[in-house]
Amino acid sequence: MKLAIDAMGGDNAPHAIVNGALKALETFSDLEIELIGNEAQIAPLINDQQDRISILHTEEKIEADDEPVRAVRRKKNASMIIMAERVKNHLADACISAGNTGALMAAGLLIIGRIPGIERPALAPTLPTLDGKGFVMLDVGANAEAKREHLQQYAIMGSEYAEKVRGIQNPRIGLLNVGTEEKKGNELYKQTFDLLSRSPINFIGNVEARDLLNGAADVIVADGFSGNIALKTIEGTALSVFTMVKETLTSTLTAKLIAALLKPKLKELKKKMNYAEYGGACLFGLRAPVIKAHGSSDQLAIFHTISQAREIVLQNVIATMEDAIRNVKEE
Amino acid sequence: MKLAIDAMGGDNAPHAIVNGALKALETFSDLEIELIGNEAQIAPLINDQQDRISILHTEEKIEADDEPVRAVRRKKNASMIIMAERVKNHLADACISAGNTGALMAAGLLIIGRIPGIERPALAPTLPTLDGKGFVMLDVGANAEAKREHLQQYAIMGSEYAEKVRGIQNPRIGLLNVGTEEKKGNELYKQTFDLLSRSPINFIGNVEARDLLNGAADVIVADGFSGNIALKTIEGTALSVFTMVKETLTSTLTAKLIAALLKPKLKELKKKMNYAEYGGACLFGLRAPVIKAHGSSDQLAIFHTISQAREIVLQNVIATMEDAIRNVKEE
Repeated sequence: MKLAIDAMGGDNAPHAIVNGALKALETFSDLEIELIGNEAQIAPLINDQQDRISILHTEEKIEADDEPVRAVRRKKNASMIIMAERVKNHLADACISAGNTGALMAAGLLIIGRIPGIERPALAPTLPTLDGKGFVMLDVGANAEAKREHLQQYAIMGSEYAEKVRGIQNPRIGLLNVGTEEKKGNELYKQTFDLLSRSPINFIGNVEARDLLNGAADVIVADGFSGNIALKTIEGTALSVFTMVKETLTSTLTAKLIAALLKPKLKELKKKMNYAEYGGACLFGLRAPVIKAHGSSDQLAIFHTISQAREIVLQNVIATMEDAIRNVKEE
Repeated sequence: MKLAIDAMGGDNAPHAIVNGALKALETFSDLEIELIGNEAQIAPLINDQQDRISILHTEEKIEADDEPVRAVRRKKNASMIIMAERVKNHLADACISAGNTGALMAAGLLIIGRIPGIERPALAPTLPTLDGKGFVMLDVGANAEAKREHLQQYAIMGSEYAEKVRGIQNPRIGLLNVGTEEKKGNELYKQTFDLLSRSPINFIGNVEARDLLNGAADVIVADGFSGNIALKTIEGTALSVFTMVKETLTSTLTAKLIAALLKPKLKELKKKMNYAEYGGACLFGLRAPVIKAHGSSDQLAIFHTISQAREIVLQNVIATMEDAIRNVKEE
């Protein structure tokens, strides 16, 4: 299997990308990796003895603050665009970028294209839970608007992914809502509750935002606007509470001395909250696996994202999603 | 000034309610309080020397799991209902309950009624920020659906409250959104951005959910669905991170011993995150101040909520909101 990777995306490109790729090649003997980006920067980082890695040189790249659709249309030689074209032309089985999220979604949609029957691709990260098992949430912002049929497709795609890649039998699908009772939420959510109840998934009902990190469900379905609000609130609140804990623990000299002793413990904790080990955010609904690695990914996060992409390819997840969506449409 | 207080609502009723009321009477000499509830339970808690407190006896009450509208319609003698009627009949200037939130909203709407021109009352708690100043967020769930005109009214009411009661000059009003740029979000939010830009408030633009606790704005405006998701995600994430910190700090014997020394510091921190000192959540848009105290309020939280209600009455906030709404409508 061959993965195309944008070597120029993210805060730590290209070294984190290249090192993560090398680690993945050492671990998985069935893997070939094509790095797309500036050869002068990438080549010196590669161990000569590795023959399953290649570089596709380009000097253009999409910047973090580029307007997504315009960047995809105009920067024809950007590393991310060439990456998407490799997948489109069946020269790679999946692709990964830690670059501009909006541009990656646009490239996925405009270059790789949707699975037949999927109306809106969805962005699906895996987030941490207290028990360490994590949950998938989608959509977290690929689409600002959604209809109930889109939410149903998100649910089906999330369910397939949780089962095939995350190894969860009969994954519990929850609908993000303002209360757990059946008639909660706005019109879209009431209708979606009804539709999910009749869908071929293990729908467990509404889940309140306050229970997300308690592992209330394996997959949380939301429209892209609310899902994005929930995701960013989790990130912001976790960071703020950590900052407060740190300030509190170091606010007096005694506390500071004691806190120093606890430092390794707190680092451990921060690592647990850092969801890089779950891989990147998948863009579900496209004809091939497209994964957005965190912008701040280090080599370990890139390694985990590559493992994730490999598993999606091995488990043939795209074809399974396509079948599942077709079956629902035919019902 | 006279406040009507539901003595039977919340987890710690009636003692927390009564003790909070007594503390408020000691602090504010301009205050009279009417406690509504079971006299046999309330009377023994009251100091005989206090003459500005009275009890309005009733045995009926609305339970936490009562269906709101039905409870308001059927439990005519419930403490919360009598409380709302005291305000409606101008026998009290404001009211407070720590009971069923949905029932309080229904009682406010059906018994007390809306300010002329206000289409949807909004639920507005004040939440903590890292710098300790806090911010008001509305609507957090009074309405599952909203139009841009409703969001504009939320913004105006929130602005008046922040200025008059929280003492913030020219409060910064932000719109909760999935990005900070102007064209972000779904259709409702794009339209609302435009409308708020033309409103007589200090609109500072879109605020991302990840910046809420950083004090990005003094007032955050959202539709009730997204606002509720954000509120509950903050609560859930803060609680989860605290649990994780606690588990981490006590995971080994050494850590446990050290953590014991830090306990007072962590308690301090938890207090900082506990937003009870900002008072309860106001129901803005009704003809009189209606405040929802937290269900878990202790006597201090009740005291803060009473102080808040008193300030709203003193500053004549309802009349100011009414004027501000009228002015916008006439423009």
